[in-house]
Amino acid sequence: MIALSTHVAELLVKLRQARPLVHHITNFVVMNDTANVTLHIGALPVMAHAREEVAEMVALAGALVLNPGTLTPGWIESMLLAGRRANELGVPVVLDPVGAGATTLRTESSLRLLDELDIAILRGNLGEVSVLAGLGGEVKGVESISAGAEAGEVARAMARQRGLTVAITGERDIISDGQHMVGVDNGHAWLTRITGSGCSATTMVAAFAAVESDPVLAATAGLVCYGLAAEMAAEVARGPASFKVALFDALYNLTPAQVRSGAKVQWLER
Amino acid sequence: MIALSTHVAELLVKLRQARPLVHHITNFVVMNDTANVTLHIGALPVMAHAREEVAEMVALAGALVLNPGTLTPGWIESMLLAGRRANELGVPVVLDPVGAGATTLRTESSLRLLDELDIAILRGNLGEVSVLAGLGGEVKGVESISAGAEAGEVARAMARQRGLTVAITGERDIISDGQHMVGVDNGHAWLTRITGSGCSATTMVAAFAAVESDPVLAATAGLVCYGLAAEMAAEVARGPASFKVALFDALYNLTPAQVRSGAKVQWLER
Amino acid sequence: MIALSTHVAELLVKLRQARPLVHHITNFVVMNDTANVTLHIGALPVMAHAREEVAEMVALAGALVLNPGTLTPGWIESMLLAGRRANELGVPVVLDPVGAGATTLRTESSLRLLDELDIAILRGNLGEVSVLAGLGGEVKGVESISAGAEAGEVARAMARQRGLTVAITGERDIISDGQHMVGVDNGHAWLTRITGSGCSATTMVAAFAAVESDPVLAATAGLVCYGLAAEMAAEVARGPASFKVALFDALYNLTPAQVRSGAKVQWLER
Repeated sequence: MIALSTHVAELLVKLRQARPLVHHITNFVVMNDTANVTLHIGALPVMAHAREEVAEMVALAGALVLNPGTLTPGWIESMLLAGRRANELGVPVVLDPVGAGATTLRTESSLRLLDELDIAILRGNLGEVSVLAGLGGEVKGVESISAGAEAGEVARAMARQRGLTVAITGERDIISDGQHMVGVDNGHAWLTRITGSGCSATTMVAAFAAVESDPVLAATAGLVCYGLAAEMAAEVARGPASFKVALFDALYNLTPAQVRSGAKVQWLER
Repeated sequence: MIALSTHVAELLVKLRQARPLVHHITNFVVMNDTANVTLHIGALPVMAHAREEVAEMVALAGALVLNPGTLTPGWIESMLLAGRRANELGVPVVLDPVGAGATTLRTESSLRLLDELDIAILRGNLGEVSVLAGLGGEVKGVESISAGAEAGEVARAMARQRGLTVAITGERDIISDGQHMVGVDNGHAWLTRITGSGCSATTMVAAFAAVESDPVLAATAGLVCYGLAAEMAAEVARGPASFKVALFDALYNLTPAQVRSGAKVQWLER
Repeated sequence: MIALSTHVAELLVKLRQARPLVHHITNFVVMNDTANVTLHIGALPVMAHAREEVAEMVALAGALVLNPGTLTPGWIESMLLAGRRANELGVPVVLDPVGAGATTLRTESSLRLLDELDIAILRGNLGEVSVLAGLGGEVKGVESISAGAEAGEVARAMARQRGLTVAITGERDIISDGQHMVGVDNGHAWLTRITGSGCSATTMVAAFAAVESDPVLAATAGLVCYGLAAEMAAEVARGPASFKVALFDALYNLTPAQVRSGAKVQWLER
């Protein structure tokens, strides 16, 4: 049996060779950051949301990110158009339900995307996923305030309910497809002090989903690499802004050897 | 009588304990920056502009920022919806009239927000506030070119005309509610060489307005902390971009003791 | 005959004295970056896209950037309104056809801007310009994958076809007005690893177009200064993110003497 850390190291090599296009329909706050994250880890980003082009654009892509973080209803229409075409073509769709639970519009928009599309991976915080799973939970703005259960339970329940893979990021990241569960302990507290760190985690997951068809492995790879880069960045940062610069540098400089030795990842259920 | 610097230091502690949500309806250029500024100083940001959710979102917030820096008419409608709900709930509204005076749309939009909403604090540059006060002034793009009078006069006139608190940033920042006036001499020239530094100053003011009901004190606290962080950043920066990184780090690292010893703030009229 | 490097050095001085306003109608991903690039090199940025104000705003400007990188049809209407007014007033218009070739919407939108406006300078990558010249070429997202011919041929053909100046950035940047051709060898590979580096190059070209009526010289100046700053940045960077910070610092710190000694620029056809 190959260790998870070895899997992740191999996927990093594969990602950088393949350089897949990751099509984002995402929020205004993080567009620049997530485009850079995509480039730094080794893939190609494109941000395109016009309903006139999203179906055509996604056909060039290896993965599609849907992130309704600054949504208006027209953007949801574009997400549905792109998502349906991605589903037809077998392009994996990764959803980041930013702020689900904070307002009716956000909750209902994410539920609609879950209802009408075949989402491969849902990447959110504990409050957001709890709300979407109908387990309670509270979200203030885009921050998880409380949850209906602990992360493993919420991830498993949501995964089974919807037939997808769920990645809940937190002090320990949890990935579940309803049967298997992985825990990732890489990361750093400063990730909670920069905007869009969850969105960037989603982008990482999507980049790996473009080169790995098993969504649990793809999500694991994205979150291990992201968390590991965060740890390396924290060693040289003087605050959250220099941490972000160092984090982005570290994504670019991350080596398979560093992944093999630094990954803190394990099967929790198998 | 407590010194202003002591007030500011205490408010910084209070802000970090309370971690209020600051709801921004703001321009595309600065969304990422002002979200980070909000987080770094100790509050929580959310950027939400859909008319379907702004009234619900602002009900979670401790302050509302309205910044029509890349406005279209639909955004003004959302600002009015959010602003009216904020007024009903007693959530302080901080307006940044970006580029008022440069085009008719910008001037009229800011005037409409001032007419239809109860704005707690108006934070702008001298040209923008001069134009809105009807005192003349010239704005080129988003830059103040000339004014109808010096900052103290403009701030006092505007504050009395509209019954609000005015904060005009410049080499010396001026805060006036029409009766009292504060001058803040913290800051650095490089703030004029990064985009959105005025918008970030507005966010700082709004974060403090969420924990301090006296708008003069809230604006003073925001501008002292921002200017002080700029001074600390300038000591280590090699240009405006590394200055911005260091500024954002400094906001996070700023201590009440540094505020007490470094604040250059005084009552000009009391 | 004055050396090109001397021309560029003189234009840098002129730009910083004039501080022209550069009006951008540009994509969401790069707004913050290109506003900063504008400020750092010595000009003033404004980002404004509302159809109600673009004609008024461009009248204050020294140059207009049209960058349909995250376009929707309404934005193209604003670009046409601003572009027509710029043409009436003699304000040079610089077009960055981001992603032309990737989707029908992007290709047709750029062609429409080229058809309906008098574009002074077209700044793109080889794939984008090849597609727009009808010479073939492939674009994946916003990345040039293949071209119909080498850059000099494509630039010359497009320049003659449309009667404008073309700047194609790549390992060697090529500038052609159909008669004359300049090659710029400044730059660094990390420019391909940060998002928006092409958009920032376009902004640099536009800033110089505001102070130099010869479009070949303006484009040359923009690309020399940008490439030279990239070289200086690469010496101190630890990855693409710290490279971007150092690049932006270097634009601000760039001296005419550094331009004279460091410019790698030559006439290829004269």
